[in-house]
Amino acid sequence: MIRLTRRYRFAASHRLHQPVFSEEENRRIYGKCNNPFGHGHNYVLSVTVAGVPDPVSGRVADPKALDRFIEKNVIRAFDHRNLNIEAEEFAGGGAPPTTECLALAIRDRLLRDWSLAFPEGAPRLDRISLEETPNNKFELRCP
Amino acid sequence: MIRLTRRYRFAASHRLHQPVFSEEENRRIYGKCNNPFGHGHNYVLSVTVAGVPDPVSGRVADPKALDRFIEKNVIRAFDHRNLNIEAEEFAGGGAPPTTECLALAIRDRLLRDWSLAFPEGAPRLDRISLEETPNNKFELRCP
Amino acid sequence: MIRLTRRYRFAASHRLHQPVFSEEENRRIYGKCNNPFGHGHNYVLSVTVAGVPDPVSGRVADPKALDRFIEKNVIRAFDHRNLNIEAEEFAGGGAPPTTECLALAIRDRLLRDWSLAFPEGAPRLDRISLEETPNNKFELRCP
Amino acid sequence: MIRLTRRYRFAASHRLHQPVFSEEENRRIYGKCNNPFGHGHNYVLSVTVAGVPDPVSGRVADPKALDRFIEKNVIRAFDHRNLNIEAEEFAGGGAPPTTECLALAIRDRLLRDWSLAFPEGAPRLDRISLEETPNNKFELRCP
Amino acid sequence: MIRLTRRYRFAASHRLHQPVFSEEENRRIYGKCNNPFGHGHNYVLSVTVAGVPDPVSGRVADPKALDRFIEKNVIRAFDHRNLNIEAEEFAGGGAPPTTECLALAIRDRLLRDWSLAFPEGAPRLDRISLEETPNNKFELRCP
Amino acid sequence: MIRLTRRYRFAASHRLHQPVFSEEENRRIYGKCNNPFGHGHNYVLSVTVAGVPDPVSGRVADPKALDRFIEKNVIRAFDHRNLNIEAEEFAGGGAPPTTECLALAIRDRLLRDWSLAFPEGAPRLDRISLEETPNNKFELRCP
Repeated sequence: MIRLTRRYRFAASHRLHQPVFSEEENRRIYGKCNNPFGHGHNYVLSVTVAGVPDPVSGRVADPKALDRFIEKNVIRAFDHRNLNIEAEEFAGGGAPPTTECLALAIRDRLLRDWSLAFPEGAPRLDRISLEETPNNKFELRCP
Repeated sequence: MIRLTRRYRFAASHRLHQPVFSEEENRRIYGKCNNPFGHGHNYVLSVTVAGVPDPVSGRVADPKALDRFIEKNVIRAFDHRNLNIEAEEFAGGGAPPTTECLALAIRDRLLRDWSLAFPEGAPRLDRISLEETPNNKFELRCP
Repeated sequence: MIRLTRRYRFAASHRLHQPVFSEEENRRIYGKCNNPFGHGHNYVLSVTVAGVPDPVSGRVADPKALDRFIEKNVIRAFDHRNLNIEAEEFAGGGAPPTTECLALAIRDRLLRDWSLAFPEGAPRLDRISLEETPNNKFELRCP
Repeated sequence: MIRLTRRYRFAASHRLHQPVFSEEENRRIYGKCNNPFGHGHNYVLSVTVAGVPDPVSGRVADPKALDRFIEKNVIRAFDHRNLNIEAEEFAGGGAPPTTECLALAIRDRLLRDWSLAFPEGAPRLDRISLEETPNNKFELRCP
Repeated sequence: MIRLTRRYRFAASHRLHQPVFSEEENRRIYGKCNNPFGHGHNYVLSVTVAGVPDPVSGRVADPKALDRFIEKNVIRAFDHRNLNIEAEEFAGGGAPPTTECLALAIRDRLLRDWSLAFPEGAPRLDRISLEETPNNKFELRCP
Repeated sequence: MIRLTRRYRFAASHRLHQPVFSEEENRRIYGKCNNPFGHGHNYVLSVTVAGVPDPVSGRVADPKALDRFIEKNVIRAFDHRNLNIEAEEFAGGGAPPTTECLALAIRDRLLRDWSLAFPEGAPRLDRISLEETPNNKFELRCP
């Protein structure tokens, strides 16, 4: 079993604000991330897949197929977007677009169509990590 | 003469849109950066000062004084902000908050109060660089 | 379950020397790290916590509370310190301040007061890693 | 139990081409990596070992012994080499020198002589990772 | 005047061998880089252009136009290539494909068509740098 | 004219303390760097040389000769050392081992024997930079 990790980047803006909380609670819980007009980040997404290398091709996954899948299902939805307004996961309210919730949204998007893109179960989605800054990273095993 | 470079980071959102241009021109010129609801970046600011080390202290600058100056004059104004709405340089229209214009705004802020903070001309502000992403950097000599 | 990793930095000096060994054994076992007057490193500490994001705030941990806890329990004790003389774990002899032992000391400090700082068990301390140089890293699961 | 990871680098060239496939299949499966005259990479190898620190020396492994072992068994075989022609694992045909197969070859080389170099089972080889580019990494648990 | 630097990457193989030298001289001068079957690198190319930001668009250069120009004139020629055989600058003999000579070849390619791609002299090509490894970099002012 | 930059690393400890100043002045000027028992850093030294590539070898400098020169004249003197006690430039008092003064000491060491190591003036020493941390760097042109 080999794990392949590929890295992708996108830039987006967000504001952390939960209407259920008071203004003061929002400021206390989210700090500067609650600033009213939003701010943004260069996110780094690492996608890890696992599998046994094909004995003939010597490959565990087709990197071009993986890139197309991530581009179509993640990058197109979030890159150069305002997450609060343009991402369907956050536009309707509910949890605010913290990087935790963004990582969960990305995992759900990947799992939703994974078996269509990789029907033979190869490779298997293993885990993702999402960096908001070089010093702040979230990891999530799949599924 | 020694040059000291210190790095600072801030996160902000912006949208590149020039009202003087047509919608189509805006899309052609700014591409994804023209997306209507904005996006954001982790900016990395490098500030370079130059001077002769003091023969007794062995220092070319007081790093704590430099950090306080950058914090007060740059970070506080731009960190976790929407540049189009909250930065005085861009809120009133004129040029859009491209990273070029943001670098120019930072240089002007630094030069405006430099002689108050470092009255003996030591250290001298030499240049700044501003990274929008790891692959896109702007440099500006001062003055 | 999501894992959040935050990175912290501190600079310290140490000398690897075990009085139980002969001078020659010390030199053979620790090499240049046994140089008599000590040397130092920029250490990078990564602290990983695990938990389920709060369904309302969308957060797995309060990053400010985590930073305060690490600052109080680790950074203040080791930053800009001589580990052999100023760190209580090593000042009294015993094992020398190898990065292995320093990582163990950091884990023990974190576990000692964790339940006071995060009484509801959220987040859980999952693992730490400590880099002595970019090419030499130690990882430790907790507890 | 502590895990120590050390990083090593080597530069090599390869061409991905499987004679069993047609020319068209080779181009489709390997893309630019199938270019007829080869290309190359700066590979980054991370070797992770695990063990309990010795209570007297405070060390989980002798880093110099580990470096000598990796130099002798991996770097000497692959650094500044053409993998298709000069690496015994690939010179005879079989699977092409994908980074997956190269990682497997490195693991086999390490396991083959591990117990001679570290006869007391300390440290234990835990996992390796091999980066072909900063955005493409393969991980393999051992054994 | 602002300088914009953008980074590009390509992977190539080469062998340093000068037929004018004896076998022994080749080994002494080029060391492991003279290994007979070649090796390779992940090259990182930084292209710096200089200009005055357009007062209306706020841009010093069109990044998409610059990317297309570098892709067409440099990346297509060298990425996933064997420099000794496939690069017209080195295929005919003469100086071997050292990174110095590769940097000179890139500069000449850029200058040759620059005025066609950027006819109004905006932006001006200022300098390039080419990294062979993270510890070995070549810089060249233009012209 | 091409500039070649090679990077070297060493680990050392120091304490910033100027006996000419009072205890209070030392604490105010040097902050945590004045802590009585010292601390340390992983220093990164970049050495830049300039020259015209040799038309036959295609090289601007012999990288092995440069490495030997830096190893002999800089690394051996400062790596795994206590700068206050073991470096001749600082052991006798005078200016404290700030990174500014360490960079000046390195430049003087390089210039002192440069013409013996590279008698034909090729390559010329152009500049050095010395990083104390990833966010704090000093540059010095030579001579």
